[in-house]
Amino acid sequence: MLDRGFHHDGSADHVSTLAPEPGETVTVFVRTPKGHGGGVHVRTTPDGEPHFTEALVDRETEHEIWWRADVVARNPVTRYRFLLTDPDAAAGYRWLNGSGLHAGDVPDAHDFRLLTHAAPPGWARDAVVYEIFPDRFARSSARRPLPGWAEERGWDDPVTGTGPSTPREFFGGDLDGVRERLGHIAALGANTLYLTPVFPAPSNHRYNASSFAEIDPLLGGDAAYRRLLDEAHARGLRVLGDLTTNHCGSTHPWFQAALAGEDAPEREMFVFGDGELGYEAWMGVASLPKFDWRSDLLRRRMIEADDSVVRRWIRFGLDGWRVDVANMTGRLRGDDLTREVAARFRRAMTEENPATVVLAEHAHDAAGDLDAGGWHGTMNYAGFTRPVWSWLRGPDVRMPFLGVPAPVPRLGGDTVLATMRAFAAQISWRSLTHSWSLVSSHDTARIRTVCGGDPALVEVAAGLMFTLPGTPMLYAGDELGLEGAWGEDGRRTMPWDRRDSWDTRTLAAYRGLGALRGAHDALRHGGLRWVHASRDALVFLREHAGERLLVLAARAAHDPVRLRLGGAAAPVYGSEELAAGPDGTYTLPSDGPAFHVWRLL
Amino acid sequence: MLDRGFHHDGSADHVSTLAPEPGETVTVFVRTPKGHGGGVHVRTTPDGEPHFTEALVDRETEHEIWWRADVVARNPVTRYRFLLTDPDAAAGYRWLNGSGLHAGDVPDAHDFRLLTHAAPPGWARDAVVYEIFPDRFARSSARRPLPGWAEERGWDDPVTGTGPSTPREFFGGDLDGVRERLGHIAALGANTLYLTPVFPAPSNHRYNASSFAEIDPLLGGDAAYRRLLDEAHARGLRVLGDLTTNHCGSTHPWFQAALAGEDAPEREMFVFGDGELGYEAWMGVASLPKFDWRSDLLRRRMIEADDSVVRRWIRFGLDGWRVDVANMTGRLRGDDLTREVAARFRRAMTEENPATVVLAEHAHDAAGDLDAGGWHGTMNYAGFTRPVWSWLRGPDVRMPFLGVPAPVPRLGGDTVLATMRAFAAQISWRSLTHSWSLVSSHDTARIRTVCGGDPALVEVAAGLMFTLPGTPMLYAGDELGLEGAWGEDGRRTMPWDRRDSWDTRTLAAYRGLGALRGAHDALRHGGLRWVHASRDALVFLREHAGERLLVLAARAAHDPVRLRLGGAAAPVYGSEELAAGPDGTYTLPSDGPAFHVWRLL
Repeated sequence: MLDRGFHHDGSADHVSTLAPEPGETVTVFVRTPKGHGGGVHVRTTPDGEPHFTEALVDRETEHEIWWRADVVARNPVTRYRFLLTDPDAAAGYRWLNGSGLHAGDVPDAHDFRLLTHAAPPGWARDAVVYEIFPDRFARSSARRPLPGWAEERGWDDPVTGTGPSTPREFFGGDLDGVRERLGHIAALGANTLYLTPVFPAPSNHRYNASSFAEIDPLLGGDAAYRRLLDEAHARGLRVLGDLTTNHCGSTHPWFQAALAGEDAPEREMFVFGDGELGYEAWMGVASLPKFDWRSDLLRRRMIEADDSVVRRWIRFGLDGWRVDVANMTGRLRGDDLTREVAARFRRAMTEENPATVVLAEHAHDAAGDLDAGGWHGTMNYAGFTRPVWSWLRGPDVRMPFLGVPAPVPRLGGDTVLATMRAFAAQISWRSLTHSWSLVSSHDTARIRTVCGGDPALVEVAAGLMFTLPGTPMLYAGDELGLEGAWGEDGRRTMPWDRRDSWDTRTLAAYRGLGALRGAHDALRHGGLRWVHASRDALVFLREHAGERLLVLAARAAHDPVRLRLGGAAAPVYGSEELAAGPDGTYTLPSDGPAFHVWRLL
Repeated sequence: MLDRGFHHDGSADHVSTLAPEPGETVTVFVRTPKGHGGGVHVRTTPDGEPHFTEALVDRETEHEIWWRADVVARNPVTRYRFLLTDPDAAAGYRWLNGSGLHAGDVPDAHDFRLLTHAAPPGWARDAVVYEIFPDRFARSSARRPLPGWAEERGWDDPVTGTGPSTPREFFGGDLDGVRERLGHIAALGANTLYLTPVFPAPSNHRYNASSFAEIDPLLGGDAAYRRLLDEAHARGLRVLGDLTTNHCGSTHPWFQAALAGEDAPEREMFVFGDGELGYEAWMGVASLPKFDWRSDLLRRRMIEADDSVVRRWIRFGLDGWRVDVANMTGRLRGDDLTREVAARFRRAMTEENPATVVLAEHAHDAAGDLDAGGWHGTMNYAGFTRPVWSWLRGPDVRMPFLGVPAPVPRLGGDTVLATMRAFAAQISWRSLTHSWSLVSSHDTARIRTVCGGDPALVEVAAGLMFTLPGTPMLYAGDELGLEGAWGEDGRRTMPWDRRDSWDTRTLAAYRGLGALRGAHDALRHGGLRWVHASRDALVFLREHAGERLLVLAARAAHDPVRLRLGGAAAPVYGSEELAAGPDGTYTLPSDGPAFHVWRLL
């Protein structure tokens, strides 16, 4: 058992409320092994000053002592950790925080966190997201005239992953096409659609919006969006939009007006006078002029006004937004307005509909932008995708990741776990569980290719996505075994009419894992306890209200792991029975790649 | 060599400027072992987006390659770290950041940092601070009538460390007393005096100020302060004040006016309506009403107005401020104005005199309040004092520390080093080097007592204080071997007339270490490279412009440490010669407790 049997996390078993009011007293529970002969204190820092409260024994189980202590959620973010004293230990005490058990003193950065910011809606904790890149997902029978920039492609043509045609080639997926395939999505256990942008734009990715006021007629326009939202909602599915808050397209009327004259009101919405272009743009790309969030006019049009972009599409029926380039939004040289913009965005959105979520794109470390009353979570590339890739990468795969000038490394499970814990420890349990766990997206290679084409490794990756805390985000096509060595290369069309190309093993795994997550509260709402980490195997427990699931992920055959966890174990994913020995010890299967889940009885 | 010979820090050898302008291109240098066959990139996150720049070989030495790369100081805090690629390594790459070398991915929290905030004055990098608690340091021949609250004590009486008399007993140290002892202070190598509060207050510690407008007449008033500042400045010594920005005393006219009526303008300066007292107070202590930094009137009177407290005493001649309870200043429930208040404080102060510093009291993790254009540094209790205590604590000493309900642990050097590195990695090199390294203060036990009375261990503690990056802060009396098991117990009078009680070995050590620091640029301006850490020994290099100092601190006899560092070594502190063996390997002395410094030739 990692951390020697000491444990706390932010899940419902360990905190009396997941959404405390400002000033509310929250009872926190921490578990120690039965043999812990010392005391437990909880340390908080109300108004910035350390404060200790003694914990009391709440109850004892066969192997554990559960302690409880009161923590006042005095500040918007209340940090806490545990001091474990032991009169017999030479060292005197140990700390338990979000990154585990520590003998030496540790900074506050990995303290556990309570948030009094308004909580995300309840449905978000149960969400399984399915990401759709509209041009490539499915097309209806409608045929529409194409604009001049578009290069028409047949549905089964290969994509052109690099070059000038990449943003121009047009496969013609549309919103009615999505609507007609909702059954496929629901059968995966997904309950939330995330569509990359659907606003008009002179590209197939549509991140260079020429309008935020209507849905692209090439996708079927507002009417098709209406039909999609209505049918999705009727099926109990939610739908998220994708908004570029960092920039718009250079053809957008706001930017055109700003360009037209220095006296235009829109001038303040952008940053003129800079560099080669004469204006600030995303990564210097001329077609993506950067917004200036100091501008009141921008704030009104995007967020605050009654007919702002954020508000009107929520009123139209969206269940929330994914925010593109959230990491740069409001950041420019001396200005860092990101957290403020995020908080205003979230507030305006939830004024329109409290049952909405907002997720921030962040390809690196999002910790500084979370837990601040704005974004509910991030696309967890840094704390989930990269570690999983680093562990499961095919031995011969040399694959870059979003601009890092070195291929993704191949690392042991212990190293990868350290990365996952380090990122998770920086944010609240709430932000972690509402962040998206993804193994691919429209911006990355496909997991199938990352895994060197091995469906058994893909299953392990998907298994981690569906069983670790965090919101699973499936990228459409992964479940069929689509390949792709980088983002654009992976934007392949869904082979609806070529069923022989589907990897039915992978599809069955995704469906099975989706069903598993739906069937077990412990996977959606449970705590996380790391049990074992070695080069080729990771073992953890998910626990909630008495339900205990034991998960074994193995990338290769490995030395058998022996555990004493008590009780019998019934397989709920994977077929291996697990029988305890006479001393109550389990020996876990040592094959691999493999993914197993048992329910401890 | 820890980190396998890869190294960077924020010192002058490794960055082309310590005070970049916004937008300035800074050249950063990173060292790799000669055998590094791969490449080096520097990763920055301008405006929140990762960006990689390839490093080029700048030069090669006998054992190392120095690489250089350009980093634009685009944002107020520009973070960077190094990607070390190696085509032969199975893992693919490693990261080098402020906490060392990492095989797995790491969050941005420990990235190196460039700051474009206005830099502290140059003298601060060379400062050695001497802390004086005025009532206990020295008294002049003046005799003044005492107020009613005071309980008069003879100079050689013991202090009453707990109970109602503790804040009342009055020993009568005054400012002329300080002035008459400047020679003692200068002989220690100290060049900066820090006096705890000298404003009038109904206590011997004066943290409950009844005025910020004059110096306590019991200390000699404004005239004595004038004399002290003038004589100190004439000797080349600087003087820092101590200001309570979190609260004032309940007898202060501002609070009295606020109490008197709800319509008083001063009402907004405090937080009424709360709890048992009817107003918010520091830790609920009635005599310390908390300021409300939302108040414009408070901001004007303390900081902004021409005759504000901050400004007028700088004009009077102070060289800066130490800020009491900086960690709580501006923090209350939903408000967190600390960084803003700090930045305004620093700006107002440096408008009056750019050659001033401001240091923040923080007994725990100050990282969130540094590098923000406000406080130049902190009292580094968390990142220096506690680790040093944890390593050097007498085996039988059970000593609490500032409210932690467990005695300071006794830990091995490797664990302690991990703590020091974790805290240091969170802040810029600038903030680290301008923070105070202290082994005791008026708020803690005395280092002598912490070390179980062993002067050899005290010398090791003082040695670390004088040779690690950070501004040494000596608490008056430590150099004479004064004892004290907690803050108030240690507030003993200086035994000027009982020279037989002085520990002359300790005094010689302090003087020798002070002279050593003054004599070697590498100790004041050099980088820090950890070489070895074991249970009982810590070894590091300080390097600057070709000067290389090797430091060995040992708390006990230990296995000999062997190093290959090249060249000969001349002892500059401690008497042991160091001779390289025929293979160029040094074997360091294995005795302990011991403190040695060599100059590598």
